[in-house]
Amino acid sequence: MDSESTVVVGHTRPDADSVCSAIAFAALKSAEGTPTTPLIQGPINAESEYLLERFEVSVPEERRTVGDYDVILVDHSERDQAPEDLSPDQLRGIVDHHRIGDLQSSRPAFYFADVVGCTATLIHELAERREVSLDRSTRGLMLGAILSDTMLLASPTTTDRDRDASAALAESLAVDREDFGQKQFEAKSTVGSLPPSEALKGDLKVYDTSHGAVAIGQIEVADSEAILTEKGAYIEAMEQLQDEGDYHGVVLLVTDIPAKGSHVLVVSTDDSAYESALDITLSDRSQFVDGLLSRKKQVVPPLLEAFGSSKLT
Amino acid sequence: MDSESTVVVGHTRPDADSVCSAIAFAALKSAEGTPTTPLIQGPINAESEYLLERFEVSVPEERRTVGDYDVILVDHSERDQAPEDLSPDQLRGIVDHHRIGDLQSSRPAFYFADVVGCTATLIHELAERREVSLDRSTRGLMLGAILSDTMLLASPTTTDRDRDASAALAESLAVDREDFGQKQFEAKSTVGSLPPSEALKGDLKVYDTSHGAVAIGQIEVADSEAILTEKGAYIEAMEQLQDEGDYHGVVLLVTDIPAKGSHVLVVSTDDSAYESALDITLSDRSQFVDGLLSRKKQVVPPLLEAFGSSKLT
Repeated sequence: MDSESTVVVGHTRPDADSVCSAIAFAALKSAEGTPTTPLIQGPINAESEYLLERFEVSVPEERRTVGDYDVILVDHSERDQAPEDLSPDQLRGIVDHHRIGDLQSSRPAFYFADVVGCTATLIHELAERREVSLDRSTRGLMLGAILSDTMLLASPTTTDRDRDASAALAESLAVDREDFGQKQFEAKSTVGSLPPSEALKGDLKVYDTSHGAVAIGQIEVADSEAILTEKGAYIEAMEQLQDEGDYHGVVLLVTDIPAKGSHVLVVSTDDSAYESALDITLSDRSQFVDGLLSRKKQVVPPLLEAFGSSKLT
Repeated sequence: MDSESTVVVGHTRPDADSVCSAIAFAALKSAEGTPTTPLIQGPINAESEYLLERFEVSVPEERRTVGDYDVILVDHSERDQAPEDLSPDQLRGIVDHHRIGDLQSSRPAFYFADVVGCTATLIHELAERREVSLDRSTRGLMLGAILSDTMLLASPTTTDRDRDASAALAESLAVDREDFGQKQFEAKSTVGSLPPSEALKGDLKVYDTSHGAVAIGQIEVADSEAILTEKGAYIEAMEQLQDEGDYHGVVLLVTDIPAKGSHVLVVSTDDSAYESALDITLSDRSQFVDGLLSRKKQVVPPLLEAFGSSKLT
C-alpha cells in the first residue's frame, strides 16, 4: 500500500460480516477505479476462516492502525471499535447496519446505513445499483456474511432485502442457499472448538444495571447437543466468571441454528428475576426457548428494562 | 401530528436546501407509507419564500423542539444545528452532504450521505431508485434547492450527479433550468433586501486562528452593482463589526452569480496578510476574483492555512 491508498476495515474482534464486507467493499471501490485494500483488526474467527478457504481468498492484513491512509469503515461507526489512530481527516466513508455511532469526519463523506440484517446486503445493493460485477469469490463471501449475520435468515433482524440479496448471490453462484448456510454453520461449530471457559468469553457483552453488572454470552452452533453434554462444565465456567467479574448474573445463549431457538443458561444471585424478565422457567439452570435467536433484540432489552439499565460497558 | 408521526427537519437558520429537502424527503416517506411532516427551525429566507410561493407550497411549521416524534434530519448531522431536545432514541435517519457530524442514534438507522453539491440531489436519487414519483411542486422545490446550493451549477462543489438531477427535474417540469435559476437568484436579491449591517451578518462564519478571530461573510446576488454602489456603507458595517467582535479581520464575499465570481472586501489589522493568503491585490479595500464562488472551499482553507487554524467556532 502506498500513501495514496484507501483501506476498508471492519470492527475489532472481527466476525464474518466485518471481514467479508471489508473485502467486498474494497473490491467494489477498486472496480470503480479507486485502488482499495481490505484490512482486519484482529484474528479471524472459525467461520471467516472457512469462508476464505472455501472461496480461496487470502486473509487480509491485520493491523490496529491505519497511518496516513484514506479510511472507509464497514459494519460499525464506533470510535472504540475503529482503528486506534483513525482521525476525522482520514474518514472517507461508512457502510453499516448498526446505530449511528460517535465517529466524525472533517470533510463531506460517503455514508450508507440502513436497518437490515447485514452490511454485506447493503454492499450487494450498491454493486447492483452502480452496475459493478464482483467476482465469484467476493460474491461467495458476501453470501456467507449475510447467512452468518442473519443466522440462515432466521434471526428477527432479517429483512426482505437480506433475503433478496442472499437469493441473488446464491443464484449467481449456482449454490443452494440452505445447503451453503448449513455447511458454513457446521464448519463454525467444528473448526476451532474451544474449552467452555473460552467459548463463553468468545462473544460476551457486559451491561451495567441498577442491580449490578450482567454478562451475556452467545454461542451459535449447528447442533446444540455437543454443547449440552458438557453443560456441567459450562455452568462451572459461568460460576467462575461471575466470581471474577462480581456479576449479578451470567447468561449464556446456546443458539441452535437449525432448531431456530436457544438454550438459555443462567447463573445469578437471583434466578427468579431472570426467569421473570426473560419469561422462562429454569430447570437445572436452563431452558430451551423456541424462536430466541437475537441477544440484541430479544434478551438485552427485557433484561435492561427489568433491572433498570444504565449504560452499555 | 400525532405521537406516531415522523418529522423531517433541516438545520437552524434554514437555507433553501434545508427547507426544500425537508419537504421533499417528507413527501418521499409519506408516499412510501410512513406519514411524515416537514418542519423548519427558524424563519425561511427570501429564496425559500420565492420557491414556496412559486410552487404554491405552504411554509412548514416552525419549531425548535421535536417532542416525542421520530426524527429524520436533512442537510446536517450536527448537534448544535439540530432541534434542541432531539435524543438518540428518536433519530431514525439522516440525508446529508456535509461531514459526518456528532449526532448519534441509539438504534440502527438510515443514513445516506455523499460528496455532492446538494442534499436534494440525493433525495432525487432515492426517489428514482425507489420508483416513487413526487408531485410537480416537490420536484420544483428540489430543483430550486440544487440551483441554490450549487449557485446555478457553477460552484466548485457541483458534481455530475447534481447536473444530472437538476437536468432531470427541469425536464420533468418542462422549465428551462438556466432561466429558472436566474429568476430564483433575482428574487433572492430583491425580496427582503437588507441594510448593509444586517446583510453582512446574515451568513457570517467566525474562525479562530493563531492571529485572532476572523469573520467571513457571503452575500450571493444576481447583480453585484446594487451592492457595490453602497460599498462605503458595507465597509463601515465591516469596521463596526470588527470593533464589536475584536476580530483580526472581516472578509465579505459579494458573489455575483451570473458573473461567476466574487468581489472580496477586506477590513483588517493586516491587509497584506489577507492579500497574500487569498492571492489578491486590494484596491480601495476590494478586488473582484473571477471563479471565486465557495467560501468553504476557496476562502476558508487558504486563510486558515496562512494564519494557523485552530477550531471552527
